[in-house]
Order: sequence, then C-alpha cells, then structure tokens
Amino acid sequence: MEYLDTDPVRLSPDGKAVVYIDQRLLPHKTEHISVYKAEDMYNAIKTLAVRGAPCIGIFAAYCVYVISLYTADPALDSELESFCAYLDSSRPTAVNLSYALFEMKKVLSESRGLPAEIRRERLRRRAQEIHQSDIDSCERIAGFGLSLLKAGDGVITHCNAGALATSRLGTGLGPLLLAARKGIELHPYVDETRPLLQGARLTAFELKQAGLEPTLICDNMAAYVMSQGLVDAVMIGADRIAANGDTANKIGSSQLAIAAKYYGVPFYVLAPTSTVDKSCKTGRDIKIELREGDEIKKMFFEAPTAPEGVKCLNPAFDITDHTLITKIITENGIFSPKEL
Amino acid sequence: MEYLDTDPVRLSPDGKAVVYIDQRLLPHKTEHISVYKAEDMYNAIKTLAVRGAPCIGIFAAYCVYVISLYTADPALDSELESFCAYLDSSRPTAVNLSYALFEMKKVLSESRGLPAEIRRERLRRRAQEIHQSDIDSCERIAGFGLSLLKAGDGVITHCNAGALATSRLGTGLGPLLLAARKGIELHPYVDETRPLLQGARLTAFELKQAGLEPTLICDNMAAYVMSQGLVDAVMIGADRIAANGDTANKIGSSQLAIAAKYYGVPFYVLAPTSTVDKSCKTGRDIKIELREGDEIKKMFFEAPTAPEGVKCLNPAFDITDHTLITKIITENGIFSPKEL
Repeated sequence: MEYLDTDPVRLSPDGKAVVYIDQRLLPHKTEHISVYKAEDMYNAIKTLAVRGAPCIGIFAAYCVYVISLYTADPALDSELESFCAYLDSSRPTAVNLSYALFEMKKVLSESRGLPAEIRRERLRRRAQEIHQSDIDSCERIAGFGLSLLKAGDGVITHCNAGALATSRLGTGLGPLLLAARKGIELHPYVDETRPLLQGARLTAFELKQAGLEPTLICDNMAAYVMSQGLVDAVMIGADRIAANGDTANKIGSSQLAIAAKYYGVPFYVLAPTSTVDKSCKTGRDIKIELREGDEIKKMFFEAPTAPEGVKCLNPAFDITDHTLITKIITENGIFSPKEL
Repeated sequence: MEYLDTDPVRLSPDGKAVVYIDQRLLPHKTEHISVYKAEDMYNAIKTLAVRGAPCIGIFAAYCVYVISLYTADPALDSELESFCAYLDSSRPTAVNLSYALFEMKKVLSESRGLPAEIRRERLRRRAQEIHQSDIDSCERIAGFGLSLLKAGDGVITHCNAGALATSRLGTGLGPLLLAARKGIELHPYVDETRPLLQGARLTAFELKQAGLEPTLICDNMAAYVMSQGLVDAVMIGADRIAANGDTANKIGSSQLAIAAKYYGVPFYVLAPTSTVDKSCKTGRDIKIELREGDEIKKMFFEAPTAPEGVKCLNPAFDITDHTLITKIITENGIFSPKEL
C-alpha cells in the first residue's frame, strides 16, 4: 500500500480483533474500528463500512478466526458453523464472502480432532493466506490490465475496485494505480457511482493519493465522455462472475457496458478467479441485493431529494451480459468471457 | 394546472414584474419571486431558478415586456436589443430562449414608428401568445404521446419536462399527466437526474401531486429496470432538435437512449416544433453548456462528495443521435426523426 497507511482490513496488533477502515466516512475521515463481536462484524458488512467484494472476503476470514478466540474449545465447530451462516447472510451478491467462509469452514472440518489451539492457528494462517493471495492476484491483474492500455489513454472506472475494495493495487483500479507507480500518464474518468458515491468518495481519493489526476463525472455522463472520443477503455471489478462470463458488479455497470459497446470502447472486467462462481450458469442465477430507498433519497444529502413518501427502487448490483464484455482479466491472464 | 396553484412563470397581478417559482427550492418550498431588473432575470435563468426549455422561453418573453415598462420611449429599440443579447447569453443549449427573444425582437422591428405604448402592448400580447401557444402545444403533445401507451405500461422519464418546465401538462411528462387526468394507470420510473436532481425534486413531486405513483431510481439503474421487463417506453423532452432529428436534452438522455435501443424499448422525444432548429444540420452544430464542477461535488450535499481539488467535467446536456430515437412527438403529430 503506497498511499494509504494501512490495509483496509487486518488483524489488530494484539491479534484479538479485526481492524477495518470505516469506508462510509471517507474521504473526510480515516477512522479505524476494532471488532471482535459477531453482531458488529455483521453490521460492518451490512452497512458497507467494509465493502468491496475481495475486501469483504478477507474481512470475513479474519472474523472467523477472531470469533474462534472467544469460543470455548468444545463449541468451536457448532459456534463457528452458525457464525459463518450468520455472516454469510449480511450481503447476497458478492461471491467472495461465501467463498472465504467456505474456505474457513474447510479448515475447520479438515482439522477436526486436533487440539483447539492448533485449529485456531490454522484458521489464522488460512485467513492470512486468503489476504496474501488477494494481494498477489491484484498485483498480477494490474500487470495484465496495464498491458491493454497505452500512455495517454482515457479510462472510465465505476464504483471502487481499488485498494479499499481489495488489497493494495485493487482489481478494476489496478492498471491505473500500477501506471501511477511506473510514471505512465493515463486519464481516469471516475463515475461518481450513485447512490453511495464510492467513485467520488473512494476512487477519486485513491487515484489522487496515488498521484493521478482523476476527472469526476456523474454516472449519466459516461456516454457523453465516450462520444467526445476521450475514452479508450472501461475497467471495472466484479462481485460475482457466472460460468458464461455474465458479471454482477455495482449497479450501473451494465448501462456503462451498453454505452461502451455502442461507442466501440473495450469493456474490461478485472477480478481474481475466486470471483468466478461455476455454480451460477448465467447471470440469471445471481441474486441481486435490493437495498433501502433512503440510500437514494436521503443519505449524504442536506435535505431529502424527493418528496415524502416517494417509492424508490434501489438494486445494489446489476448483471453485465457476457456479450458486452471484451475481456475478463484474472491473475492468470486475459480471457474472452467464453475462454473463461 | 391541476396540481400546482399557478404557472411556473407569469406576469405579476399588477403586470409590472415577472413572477416565477424558484425551482431550486422545490420540493421543500414553493417560493414565488418577482423580478423586474435585467440582472435578476439573467440570474434566474443562469442559476436554474427558472429552468426547462419552454419555460425559459416564456419567461424570457415576459421579461422583454417588463423591461420595456422601465425603458424610456426613445430608448426602446436600443435598450431591448441589448437586453435580448444579454439574456440570450445566460444559457446556450435550449433553443426556446433565443426563439422567444427572436419573436419579441420581431414585434419590436415590426412596430417601429408606432407610439411606445402600443409597442409595449404588442410585446405583452406576443409574450402571452407564446405562453398560450405552449399551453396548447403541450395539450396536443400529451394526447399524441398517450396514444403510444397502453394501461399498465412502465415509462422511464429523465429530468423534468412537466408543468414546471413548460406550461400545464408539460412535454415529456404530458402523456403521464394526461393519463392521470383520465384515470389510466401507468408506472412511471423517474431518473433522479444528476447532478441537479430535477427528476427526484421536480418530476417525482409533479407525478405524485397528479396522483400517480412514481418510482424513483438513480440514473445508472435505468438499464437494470429495462432488463427486468418493467419498461415499455422512454419519454423525454428536448432542449433543441437539429434538422436531422439529433436531439439535445439533459445530460444522460443519450445514455438512456442507448440502453433503450439495446433492450428494444421505444424512445420518444416530446417537444413543440419551436424546439426544432433548422439552422443546426446535426447535433454537432448544437453547443453543449459546460457548468461548474461544484454542482457535482458540493450542491445538495452535507459535505463535499469528493476530496478537495478533484477535477469535474459537468456537461449540462448531451446529444441523442437520431438513429436512437423511435419517434419525435410535436403538437402536429408523431414523426420519425427523418419525417421531421
């Protein structure tokens, strides 16, 4: 991490709690919160204090380990099993949460019969492996992604798939952050990303910290920017990728992909292979989280934007059809959605 | 006007000022402002207190008349000529402003040599004709537009092309408001319309007042709503239509049109023929207004959404290519962009 002083989630120095940056307070305040209780962990994910698909996965893995510290030896299996089910119910769309919990449960089942201290130690190690593996994947994804760009290119990003959402270089933002590290000039256009403004609050913050000069736009301006010939690529992360390449990502991604197709701009999805969920044949098998309407009408605003009682529809994600995706970039290389 | 107590712009009861509703304060406050000085008129348009292409035109016509009341007889021609040039410079994209000013200047030139009082009277009458003609056009546009819908249809609207933007029934919103009057059930989906939230603040307000039940969405959710089969038509107004049918309208319109094309949803532009500017061959001849970045980062928010110093690009309009437009509906009927 070159421009944030710490990973967005990690173990506390004494190893007895998970520490996260409350991303709801950025860019105005960088506040670190320690949690060691199940309910606080659930709420951190539910309220998007911890967000970004890979980041949620890493957080969940550390949470399982920390909860094990406060669980009596004989209750380890039953308590952690029910904790995993509880945490898994906090948000439905990103696969990384259930993937990380699945990995932690595997450690548990494979260590059954061993002394509790050894089991806890293995949980800690597996959580750290998941974290390290994400760091390595991001580094590789950034390299592959950057190979698709040339100096001077304009790149639209949506939501935040940078260090705050993942580890270090991020996924969708990786090529831009790597370019900054190498001194290659790129022109990032940042969708503000309504309703929760992750683009304005987090991506613009990260890109600026990294020394790039982002241009903030409203989500509905992307087609205009493309029509002016300012965009050479769109790069986004992913929350879950179906077997056929259909990709769930932050709401607005599919609209951006449709515009990119119309203007002949390549549309790249960058994500670790752990984001691919073979159990979903197509995007129709992916559950889209519907959130509270007040996030649209009230959150962040001085006064409600719409009259009292106006109904809102607030899907947190959408599915980008594989036919709209030029390439999917993982830690293993650059693939067409079909090759995946 | 069935659900607002007055037209958004009109002459004051004593006829010596123009009264407008400050649309920046809606939906929280309906405040009427009287203006009779050139600078206040200019600022009302510039700051979007008065907005909506036809509404700006009507306002401008009344302004010319009111300014004539405070102008010495021998200075009428020179003063009003320079006032028109001044007011015309307040916003560049909507044609209605320059159209209305052109009509008022025509009255002036055609009445040269007549007594000043008669000339002022003719200016007043022409302004009222422009207003009445807009009311009549909106009524006819609404009827033609409604003939393209059936009971139960879902309709996406963008920005505000209702009573506040025009007269009474509005343009893009006309079919929905007329349906409400006739008791026909429709399902309006309202783009909040960043950055100035005219959809959330004005359109949701108008539709609710008219007795419909609008569903508010963020602009980036339109493709999702279409993908769920909830949308049978998109209906928007227009700020300027080029001779080939290319249409300038609120930023985000073209992105919406591209998504509509992708999902096979008809995309309708509703506007009076006075919006057609034959002097613009294509959309490339239409000037797009670029506005302050703070409208994106700061306006309406409790705290700036992006870190200090982040650059913004804030085009107020975009051009929807004629090939993306299914029909253009004017007071004279329903046309393909080519027939126009």
